[in-house]
Amino acid sequence: MSETIPAGKGISAAQSKIENRLIETVVESFNKTEDPRLKVLMQSLTRHLHNFLREVRLTEDEWRTAIDFLTTAGHITDGKRQEFVLLSDVLGLSMQTIAMNNQAYKGATEATVFGPFFLENAPEIAIGGDIAGGAAGQPCWVEGTVTDSSASPVPGARIEVWEADEEGFYDVQYGDGRIAGRAHLFADENGKYAFWGLTPTPYPIPDDGPVGQLLESVGRSPVRASHLHFMVSADGLRSLVTHIFVAGDPQIEIGDSVFGVKDSLIKSFETQPAGTPTPDGRDLDGKAWARTRFDIVLAPALT
Amino acid sequence: MSETIPAGKGISAAQSKIENRLIETVVESFNKTEDPRLKVLMQSLTRHLHNFLREVRLTEDEWRTAIDFLTTAGHITDGKRQEFVLLSDVLGLSMQTIAMNNQAYKGATEATVFGPFFLENAPEIAIGGDIAGGAAGQPCWVEGTVTDSSASPVPGARIEVWEADEEGFYDVQYGDGRIAGRAHLFADENGKYAFWGLTPTPYPIPDDGPVGQLLESVGRSPVRASHLHFMVSADGLRSLVTHIFVAGDPQIEIGDSVFGVKDSLIKSFETQPAGTPTPDGRDLDGKAWARTRFDIVLAPALT
Repeated sequence: MSETIPAGKGISAAQSKIENRLIETVVESFNKTEDPRLKVLMQSLTRHLHNFLREVRLTEDEWRTAIDFLTTAGHITDGKRQEFVLLSDVLGLSMQTIAMNNQAYKGATEATVFGPFFLENAPEIAIGGDIAGGAAGQPCWVEGTVTDSSASPVPGARIEVWEADEEGFYDVQYGDGRIAGRAHLFADENGKYAFWGLTPTPYPIPDDGPVGQLLESVGRSPVRASHLHFMVSADGLRSLVTHIFVAGDPQIEIGDSVFGVKDSLIKSFETQPAGTPTPDGRDLDGKAWARTRFDIVLAPALT
Repeated sequence: MSETIPAGKGISAAQSKIENRLIETVVESFNKTEDPRLKVLMQSLTRHLHNFLREVRLTEDEWRTAIDFLTTAGHITDGKRQEFVLLSDVLGLSMQTIAMNNQAYKGATEATVFGPFFLENAPEIAIGGDIAGGAAGQPCWVEGTVTDSSASPVPGARIEVWEADEEGFYDVQYGDGRIAGRAHLFADENGKYAFWGLTPTPYPIPDDGPVGQLLESVGRSPVRASHLHFMVSADGLRSLVTHIFVAGDPQIEIGDSVFGVKDSLIKSFETQPAGTPTPDGRDLDGKAWARTRFDIVLAPALT
């Protein structure tokens, strides 16, 4: 009989009707949701996930593999390790959410992913202070100005900065409670800021879990392009979460594992030979150092 | 300036281009996947998830809520509790996977969800035996024939049956290792089978976790329509995983929480007043009992 459809070999009109009817039944099951936004979210999610299943004709074995993946991700996740954030990151979903919620505003500085390594209450440093706190790496002088989108300086803008050490580890990964490689400071009356950080180096996202296995099985690098995190805020202006990246870092070409790179955020880091005088007269014991400039433009606050 | 787009208030062509370019970048990141099927799956999943985010303009708070939901689901999941399967079930994704992989074949019996309560190595009973094993409930005589799609009997077909007790609990939920409410038996030389089970009763899926909270917040019942599970297999025929449902069960109208009901699987369960003689002469101590008939048609094996 012609309506005989072996699984996966083709979809008859009758089978397609069954599959579509199921989607409508599930969508309708959310009709009584009181919160109108939640209703929109669940109904849209339902349609997109079912359409994914139908497009790829997911097998029962593949469904079980997906359940096992999520289960393993859940079990490796704890207060310090967030495998679901990593999953969102490597699928570009985190970056897409950032992109949608921080749309380009005139010449304002672009946003990028927040990442899992920010800490509230990082120590305050004076302008020109050092964020390293003992973290190892090449000293890097970072300076710039915070302005609004009409080029007026933003005195007192709060600047949070954080970064990994030269081994690729953030302080929260040391496991001993030390605070290092992070601080906050405030722009001066002219909107200017400067601090000593570390020249950023590439490091892999945690890749000993299911997300790391996924990246390996699809031939992707878990390495993030070298970067230094910023979060900048001031009254009446839109808070900015971003990174700066290092021009010439080969990982930018290979591909940042979480898709965070934007051209406008790639900055020149100029290495200074050992012995080069520092901008603030700091004595680096003859170590080489680097310098970069990052001028930050904040958009108006959303109303 | 006209290109100023507050987040969520409208999408400019420039913003749309940024979002679409990100999708293409993520899709391309899977281009080196060796396994062609995995490549198809990841690229399709990427497009559908990004399109979901874009369609609903997911906020950063909503993204965090989703991460928290998955994290909580991961932490409640263990060897006995599978919140990700429940999530798949209540979104109809399990049923859709079943529907796609067990397409209707001529008059063959339809499949439905497997559920999390099957056990390997349930005890064997003779035809006419009792699967209850001490599980409480109204005795129910279940009988039928196993045939292939050309109406020939399937002697020796293996029939696994399992069900909840009258309180809505499966034996694996008792927590004491007892086996009850499950067994396997073999059809006779004419393909006939019969056993004593329990009249199925409605019960909620485990609803004390994030999936239960989700159902509550969308105004959906966690209750499954009353059912009795079957898994039927025989050499040269397609294995069948299905349920039978109880005609007249109000939960069928309210909505089975996992979307497992198919009209062809709704069977009449006829209650017999206390004292009515049983088909096999069994003495039920004057208890009322029920009877139903389920004729099973197996499709040819997939080649």
